[in-house]
Amino acid sequence: MSKTVPLGDIAAFDDEADVIVIGYGIAGACAALEARRSGGDVLVIERASAGGGSSALSSGLFYFGGGTAVQQAAGYDDSAENMYRFMVASMGMEQANHIRRYCDDNVAHFDWMEAQGVPFERSYYPDKAVFILSTEGLMSTGNEKVWPFRDIATPVPRGHQVQMAGESPGAGAMTPLLARCEEEGVRASHDSIATALIVDEAGGAAGVAIRQTGQDRYYRARRGVVIATGGFGVNKEMLARYFPGLPDTAEPLGTPYTDGSGILLGTAAGAATSGMDGMIATASIYPPGQLIKGIIVNTLGQRFVAEDSYHGRTASFIMEQPGQRAFLIVDADIFAYPEITTAHHELIDGFETVEEMEARLELPSGSLARTMASYNRHAAQGRDPLFNKHPDWLKPLDKGPWAAFDISFNRSNYLYITLGGLKITSDAQVLDGKGAVIPGLYAAGACTAHIPRCGKSYASGMSLGPGSYFGRVAGRVAMGNSAPLSGAAGA
Amino acid sequence: MSKTVPLGDIAAFDDEADVIVIGYGIAGACAALEARRSGGDVLVIERASAGGGSSALSSGLFYFGGGTAVQQAAGYDDSAENMYRFMVASMGMEQANHIRRYCDDNVAHFDWMEAQGVPFERSYYPDKAVFILSTEGLMSTGNEKVWPFRDIATPVPRGHQVQMAGESPGAGAMTPLLARCEEEGVRASHDSIATALIVDEAGGAAGVAIRQTGQDRYYRARRGVVIATGGFGVNKEMLARYFPGLPDTAEPLGTPYTDGSGILLGTAAGAATSGMDGMIATASIYPPGQLIKGIIVNTLGQRFVAEDSYHGRTASFIMEQPGQRAFLIVDADIFAYPEITTAHHELIDGFETVEEMEARLELPSGSLARTMASYNRHAAQGRDPLFNKHPDWLKPLDKGPWAAFDISFNRSNYLYITLGGLKITSDAQVLDGKGAVIPGLYAAGACTAHIPRCGKSYASGMSLGPGSYFGRVAGRVAMGNSAPLSGAAGA
Repeated sequence: MSKTVPLGDIAAFDDEADVIVIGYGIAGACAALEARRSGGDVLVIERASAGGGSSALSSGLFYFGGGTAVQQAAGYDDSAENMYRFMVASMGMEQANHIRRYCDDNVAHFDWMEAQGVPFERSYYPDKAVFILSTEGLMSTGNEKVWPFRDIATPVPRGHQVQMAGESPGAGAMTPLLARCEEEGVRASHDSIATALIVDEAGGAAGVAIRQTGQDRYYRARRGVVIATGGFGVNKEMLARYFPGLPDTAEPLGTPYTDGSGILLGTAAGAATSGMDGMIATASIYPPGQLIKGIIVNTLGQRFVAEDSYHGRTASFIMEQPGQRAFLIVDADIFAYPEITTAHHELIDGFETVEEMEARLELPSGSLARTMASYNRHAAQGRDPLFNKHPDWLKPLDKGPWAAFDISFNRSNYLYITLGGLKITSDAQVLDGKGAVIPGLYAAGACTAHIPRCGKSYASGMSLGPGSYFGRVAGRVAMGNSAPLSGAAGA
Repeated sequence: MSKTVPLGDIAAFDDEADVIVIGYGIAGACAALEARRSGGDVLVIERASAGGGSSALSSGLFYFGGGTAVQQAAGYDDSAENMYRFMVASMGMEQANHIRRYCDDNVAHFDWMEAQGVPFERSYYPDKAVFILSTEGLMSTGNEKVWPFRDIATPVPRGHQVQMAGESPGAGAMTPLLARCEEEGVRASHDSIATALIVDEAGGAAGVAIRQTGQDRYYRARRGVVIATGGFGVNKEMLARYFPGLPDTAEPLGTPYTDGSGILLGTAAGAATSGMDGMIATASIYPPGQLIKGIIVNTLGQRFVAEDSYHGRTASFIMEQPGQRAFLIVDADIFAYPEITTAHHELIDGFETVEEMEARLELPSGSLARTMASYNRHAAQGRDPLFNKHPDWLKPLDKGPWAAFDISFNRSNYLYITLGGLKITSDAQVLDGKGAVIPGLYAAGACTAHIPRCGKSYASGMSLGPGSYFGRVAGRVAMGNSAPLSGAAGA
């Protein structure tokens, strides 16, 4: 897998195309469509028997903003500038160029997505949720209202859910995108494993070696190769290297093909990677939202995160605590068992006194009592001096009995996505270790370094959103198409 | 070095004390003084022939705020809350409890420091500098005015420089602190290497094994051991492990004893570490401040950081660029060779056109021209859409000829401090890998995990400031002294 094949070694090619795309999830489909519309003969290599990938299994959330039609219909004012400020402040400046480009084109990209037949309902889901089974088109899926980000940019919801009920609305995006590809003559080779990039004498990508029904085949790419595969959530060797503390209880999201193979194809050809130790994991304390009014403490009885953080942000902080352990503490005002409970976490017990709870959780004597006394005193004043939790979620936890949930990273079924991958320019060109562009090699989607570097800064929709956008960029740049990427017509 | 000695193995002790402090820099001196004033017999183990350590070699900057007498005299309003907001937003929430405690006590801690005889002039140095040779007591040493932090907390200067001219005003702090220790009966054993902690059956710290003039000696600690040694800037094995990309041109700050030995003493006894891959490195582009009006680009011709960032923040971003390379580009308005140049960086050349400069720097064709056109257009409007560089430093770079400096991490003499170390509670108790406190073991200063996790969030003074404060905490807690740590009397 981690080799390259010299172009000169290949006597005869089995097929050729202008652009070869590896992977038929959202990044690959968008790349294929744009390369095709730029005049290219396009061939997609897909390991499964049909297109869709992890995108089709996903909850169908796109992180879109800047003032989309859905945001406007829900009464939210957003702008490219406001979206940019939030994204750079929360996700870091490392990829400011990528973020600027994504934000500036975002309304046009949303319109393009709808023009392909991907529907978004003009409606808003106001409660706290990780994903929803209903069809509302807009929900809050990030840290926009979490301090300090709410001081930097006006908080607005940006999670755009494809209009499709059920657990996998991502299929509602992939079905029309794959239909457009097929209608417009994108060719696809299914049940095919890309085993190596074919490289020319200058080190550029010139094709792809694949394995199909037990046979090796060689496909020539006249203009470029786009790697658009998934993350490495099921690759045990890569997980052991980049996440040595990952507990057995954690489970990868996505298809069994999120094995990092596209990343390895790229690195074998000299590609650099970035952010490989980044992960978004989640076992959310919400819904129901009222549990956010509880506090989260570590084994020292100390709080360490604003409880109103996006679930992936909370999880990242839990992963850093002693023993990766944490507890959610609620009082009787918040918790009424069995009507109110969490989907992901074990209820340890109810307790008549804080002292009993402290003993049972094996916290240092007096530590939880001190934390709660301080929290309650400030919450009564509508303040949280430690983490600036939003006043909407502040109330003294003074009504016993109390209950504690074990929300430890190593005690609950956290679901995760890896965030690191190939390093690309904002033109989706793959970079080598010295920072030079590898000729003819492009990448987009989950096999590239995500814009958010870790779960602390992730927002739901940051895979499908940038994956679809930079997939489009890759397809166009590979074909030398420098026309502005905007407009509902898909021009 | 990385072993422990069982208490039961020691037939007879050579000496004993209530509290043994390892390392006589600022954290150790403050720990010793507080333990002594809490009634303890205190013995300090110091490897050199005299106290002072890296603290005495330093530029004598303390990150103090919240409304100190020096800030007030310079006309700056600050508060514990404002300081806290800046610190948590820029340095992360991981150590929010430590930060809260540090900020709440900061004015009292400053007063205490002055009461020990450490002088701070009531004066302000208004220009951009890394350190100063004059005696002004206050200067800006962090990212307070850098976006987004300036939107989150009111920017005020917090770098408090000890009143002592020259390159090592840190001695102006250590001299009086060591004098107070001696006057008040703190005992010291110089030229002594701590080789192992002595641990009791419960795993707690019960003493220190040392090597002195070729002999092994065993010192019993009745109440506790405080590790107060330096970072690991000269430990080649630890550097190779945590900073595999560190170029040969980088040089450690501090004494030759910043070899990580205190960290290894702790980990041998089961202590956990944190943030070991954190480093503040610097080869500042300022002074002179006007160079900040230039732009910094990577080998792709792209900007990647706000040029008005604290020098250590800029350096951290440079370290992440392709090949760790970066260039500072200025125009003729800013640069008048040889009157204006930078202290740390090689001038590559002057260029009549941007195209010539692009070719000489081997940037992709057109990339620098595009970056400069965009920057200049926005700068003329007083804006920086990518990084929100402060308008004070914005001007179009449109007056040729232009000059370029090589500010690559691997081409200049970057000076660095390691930031990771032993994991402590906000009571300066050392934690083990499971998050439990190791009985009798305390730590403070550069051998502990700094509050800032990396150079992006560091501010000058974040070693001496928290080092002195948590040193005091350690000395008191080791003696079981729970009186409030405040007041000029040092009570």
